Amino acid sequence: MSCTFCGIVDGSVPAHIVWEDELTVGFLDTRPVFPGHTLLVPRTHIETLPELPDELLAPLFGAARLLAGAMPEALEAHGSFVGINNRVSQSVAHLHVHVIPRKFKDGLRGFFWPRQKYEDDAHAASVAEAIRGALGRPG
Amino acid sequence: MSCTFCGIVDGSVPAHIVWEDELTVGFLDTRPVFPGHTLLVPRTHIETLPELPDELLAPLFGAARLLAGAMPEALEAHGSFVGINNRVSQSVAHLHVHVIPRKFKDGLRGFFWPRQKYEDDAHAASVAEAIRGALGRPG
Repeated sequence: MSCTFCGIVDGSVPAHIVWEDELTVGFLDTRPVFPGHTLLVPRTHIETLPELPDELLAPLFGAARLLAGAMPEALEAHGSFVGINNRVSQSVAHLHVHVIPRKFKDGLRGFFWPRQKYEDDAHAASVAEAIRGALGRPG
Repeated sequence: MSCTFCGIVDGSVPAHIVWEDELTVGFLDTRPVFPGHTLLVPRTHIETLPELPDELLAPLFGAARLLAGAMPEALEAHGSFVGINNRVSQSVAHLHVHVIPRKFKDGLRGFFWPRQKYEDDAHAASVAEAIRGALGRPG
């Protein structure tokens, strides 16, 4: 039941901390996409974004906004990527927001976002309907 | 000065809308990473996450949370990816949150997150210091 990110939050696991407030902690990913790649977590052990309680929405994403805004000055970045893996590709089951500095021509464009096409407009419409239906039946 | 996403918000550009409330709109990306790939935008024309005003943090990310939570029921997904490109790799200069359904073994793991290593711990420490410094000098 031990969670590495809970360990970082409580200080028992070492990390390079870049941000701390009452509700969130940000620290360097040890295997960054680019140097400065930060993982921002709620101090509370919450597994994925769908479980994040209302009262943590603004604190968590306000801190992500600050970190994204700091990357250009800190690291001569031109922008940033902010991302969350929920369950699939999620290496630690404690919600973490990746905040990654980006530069133009840094090599990530293209393979970062492989794209498909819908078969036709009816296919897209049926997919949209499925999502609307699920939104109308929360939980 | 015309913005495609402002056009979708005001109804002048067609899209498959999956979510609407007073402050945000979600619609299908026409070239999805996977079918159901949704773009969630604030109705207001805001360019990137660092410019998002406080009062839109909870509405925007509350809607992203709902969409991420709907993907498993809607599309038999096992999880989701939620991501924002700020300036770099950002195709439309109107803040948009990608919400993408994910399945285990869907082929994205690995090339989605190419990783590096820090040269040594001192390198990581200097990068962390740069970020902390920029956070202490907002704006």
